[in-house]
Amino acid sequence: MKIALAQLNYHIGDFQSNTHLIIKEINSAKAKGAELIVFAELAICGYPPKDFLEFESFILDCEKAILEVSKHCVGIAAIVGSPSRSKLERGKRLHNSAFFIADGQIQSIHHKTLLPTYDVFDENRYFEAAKEHHLIDYKNTKIAITICEDLWNIDGDMKYSTAPTDLMELENAEFMINIAASPFSYQQQEERKKVLAWNAKKHKLPIFYVNHIGAQTELIFDGGSCVIKANGETNYEFAYFKSETTIFDTDNISEKYTSSKDSKIEKMYNALVLGVKDYFVKSNFSKAIIGLSGGIDSALTLAIATEALGNKNVMSVLLPSKYSSEHSINDSIDLCKNLNSPYTIVPIEDAVTAFNNSLSTIFNGLEEDVTEENIQARTRGVVLMAMSNKFGNILLNTSNKSEMAVGYGTLYGDMCGGLSVIGDVYKTEVFEMCRFINRNKEIIPKNIITKPPSAELRPDQKDSDSLPDYDVLDAILFQYIECSKSGNEIIAQGFDEVTVNKSIDLVNRNEYKRYQAAPILRVSPRAFGMGRLMPLVGKYTFNNH
Amino acid sequence: MKIALAQLNYHIGDFQSNTHLIIKEINSAKAKGAELIVFAELAICGYPPKDFLEFESFILDCEKAILEVSKHCVGIAAIVGSPSRSKLERGKRLHNSAFFIADGQIQSIHHKTLLPTYDVFDENRYFEAAKEHHLIDYKNTKIAITICEDLWNIDGDMKYSTAPTDLMELENAEFMINIAASPFSYQQQEERKKVLAWNAKKHKLPIFYVNHIGAQTELIFDGGSCVIKANGETNYEFAYFKSETTIFDTDNISEKYTSSKDSKIEKMYNALVLGVKDYFVKSNFSKAIIGLSGGIDSALTLAIATEALGNKNVMSVLLPSKYSSEHSINDSIDLCKNLNSPYTIVPIEDAVTAFNNSLSTIFNGLEEDVTEENIQARTRGVVLMAMSNKFGNILLNTSNKSEMAVGYGTLYGDMCGGLSVIGDVYKTEVFEMCRFINRNKEIIPKNIITKPPSAELRPDQKDSDSLPDYDVLDAILFQYIECSKSGNEIIAQGFDEVTVNKSIDLVNRNEYKRYQAAPILRVSPRAFGMGRLMPLVGKYTFNNH
Repeated sequence: MKIALAQLNYHIGDFQSNTHLIIKEINSAKAKGAELIVFAELAICGYPPKDFLEFESFILDCEKAILEVSKHCVGIAAIVGSPSRSKLERGKRLHNSAFFIADGQIQSIHHKTLLPTYDVFDENRYFEAAKEHHLIDYKNTKIAITICEDLWNIDGDMKYSTAPTDLMELENAEFMINIAASPFSYQQQEERKKVLAWNAKKHKLPIFYVNHIGAQTELIFDGGSCVIKANGETNYEFAYFKSETTIFDTDNISEKYTSSKDSKIEKMYNALVLGVKDYFVKSNFSKAIIGLSGGIDSALTLAIATEALGNKNVMSVLLPSKYSSEHSINDSIDLCKNLNSPYTIVPIEDAVTAFNNSLSTIFNGLEEDVTEENIQARTRGVVLMAMSNKFGNILLNTSNKSEMAVGYGTLYGDMCGGLSVIGDVYKTEVFEMCRFINRNKEIIPKNIITKPPSAELRPDQKDSDSLPDYDVLDAILFQYIECSKSGNEIIAQGFDEVTVNKSIDLVNRNEYKRYQAAPILRVSPRAFGMGRLMPLVGKYTFNNH
Repeated sequence: MKIALAQLNYHIGDFQSNTHLIIKEINSAKAKGAELIVFAELAICGYPPKDFLEFESFILDCEKAILEVSKHCVGIAAIVGSPSRSKLERGKRLHNSAFFIADGQIQSIHHKTLLPTYDVFDENRYFEAAKEHHLIDYKNTKIAITICEDLWNIDGDMKYSTAPTDLMELENAEFMINIAASPFSYQQQEERKKVLAWNAKKHKLPIFYVNHIGAQTELIFDGGSCVIKANGETNYEFAYFKSETTIFDTDNISEKYTSSKDSKIEKMYNALVLGVKDYFVKSNFSKAIIGLSGGIDSALTLAIATEALGNKNVMSVLLPSKYSSEHSINDSIDLCKNLNSPYTIVPIEDAVTAFNNSLSTIFNGLEEDVTEENIQARTRGVVLMAMSNKFGNILLNTSNKSEMAVGYGTLYGDMCGGLSVIGDVYKTEVFEMCRFINRNKEIIPKNIITKPPSAELRPDQKDSDSLPDYDVLDAILFQYIECSKSGNEIIAQGFDEVTVNKSIDLVNRNEYKRYQAAPILRVSPRAFGMGRLMPLVGKYTFNNH
């Protein structure tokens, strides 16, 4: 059988565009002789549709779109992901389903059984699990159909009490199709291949796997659709971060395995570029604005943004105060020149002075402290947001994951922005990514990379005055955030007790800042935001064990 | 049997305090002759513990606390809610459990079956459902034990495919205990009583129901523990918004039914006062700061805050600009005098002028627009946050639900604040609540209530210039937000098409602002925040059906 796998970029709730995209691929695959075309999980409405699913009108639109698509499935069959209504008397009213469409009509609907509800997933919020499991019957071929997480219950990590593959008559199937919505993290390619290989080998079936590409706010879908042989080896792997439709002959799959060998940092960079691009495209915006401090975080953010949006579509603003060093301004200008990207300079001194004067009576006799530093950061925020409002550029936030973690940033100041570009990139990874960007020629001025990090909010300030060295800090944060280890567990790994306790305490005490942070493009297995839900007034020190 | 029901205020993750509280009540109930004392769902760690549950150290602390509590259960038995480890080979590693403790030891552990995963709940993220259902056997009495949602699967709303009560040998039970963590909304008292009565009647069993009181950031637990007779009638109802422990003789329950008859607005007011109070107590803060505009929203917020924290603990700041009317300042001063609460005045004109000057070259030749209005709002934000930083007062946000919905507020401006006090109170309800507060004497100056709402960001500005009348707007918003109705469904109810489409469009377009809003005290069945998850870049107009 000739099967087309369509790895496409959908937009949540944009039925017109999604339907158009699906129909175009159906017609094109049909013209190329494909007998079946496969689209990803919830392709019809985009993933994740979240509480849109609670609106009756949204479900009606899913149904209309499926009917519209069905009309084009003549001479070719299709498998399309869509929500469907549960026919059960009890339980959630929807399933997460794969529609098998042929001869212009829906032939069968197959529901997802394992509904991920952890990290960024909350499918149990919306969907009822499948109670029955049938194979697809098409042209005398039995095809096993599963949806994403249905395969993610493997030896060593049995997250679910059932495995739908144990409930299907897989011995009758010639191959399996898995339609997925599996978002990127730097380790996801490896994880996915492991899970698919485990299933292929266990069930002795080839697997045709179709994922989304494209970003939906925080979640970046990297594609990586593939064909896995019954022995678990990869037969074909799709492009990452790109749309691609490829047709396979199930009787004779050409060996064309050229798996992506990109480094972790290169993958993260590609993901972030796609994340920024799709946030703008799907929000119907084209221009960004960034505050350049002369530091490495805003430099990296600018480099990513110009790659995503075009160098002329990103306006940089330099906002020097009396504490800004000469090199900060010059380095920023050099960066903009290297990128051939526009910049402007708006000194903040007058506004800062006005604030300090207004507050001088009230603050009379009190020591200067973080208050005065925050006034500078917030003054920059006001200027940047004013320009954003006036010109319609979306302000990009430039905070990295290390400072987001320990609260080394000013709420409503440098934490402003519609999208956090590198909020899931640790400071040590920020350095690596800048070196990656500079691999062929110097784009980010060397001086920005080599000088000691500083917020420049008071004379001669250095990050290292208040924080541990970033290589130590990031290693501790990784254990705490990505691995959910407590203080004592981290100390037992050999880290200094005082440093660990201080770091964890900072993370806990700054939960309230992160609550109000911009959405963060997710590139790690554990990003701040929807995937990490901590009580705000919770009192737990994590230092007792 | 003499049973004590303990309706208490726990703090998430504060094992020392929760354990101390539980043990104190055990000893006190024992001294009064109680044979069994019942504590609420997840009492040991507080509810909801969220991702704290992913830390091994947190689970170890739950276990340590249960053992500590057990030592005191001699001569009295206890039922205590706590997470417990699943002994199943597959599935989530935890259960949400009720520990039955007697003779100083854990006698049996009973798991929750129905795990709410909708609105503000995400228990499927953490817990595996019970696979077995046993009664408690104590002093020759069989007691049915259920946990909160286990009873919330009633005729007309079968959210789950199983009902654990159908799987227990209820015919042998003499009564049922339900331990709960059921947060307040203005309709929750009624809903709870309906669910409990339905179950009591169906199973012909009296129900002893124990809920939390106290707020955990957004969620406010109102108590309302009760005893329901087998015929569904209420026998006894606990205080709302107050801790209470009462002992009942199951053979002879005294009729003492004095159910709260508070109006919707009074309940909401009481909930908000508790919400503010517990946010501060549990964050270890005592003082608040509020920007007073002269409008009704900040006036109401101040009235609630002074009731919660004490009139001397709330600092009001008046931040007049050139557009501020004389009456705004005088009305605010009158309000502070009525409340005997301190205030100060910080004009923002100089800082606003400094910003406008800094931007004059860049904005040269461009029309004034919302940019200049936002600069004023953000300048106020900078001043308030500076005072918050300097004095350690938490800034309270004063936005109401109507403006949060349509985005009639400035991000990083009047949307600043650590906690949104009235962000779940529609503007029409704000008026009602002010009249409630003034029921005995004028606290909120009449002029604040009667003058037309205005942001005072340009000359003679009125809310009604840009928004529909609040009674119409709020009715539309209620249909859209609380009832998940689409535009056409709302129009079909008789609302004006243009107004409906404009209102819904505003709600959709301002999702990005709400993403960065402060946590909102939840008093309605559908609040912005954790209970309403909408895609940010989703494109869905809700106007197609």
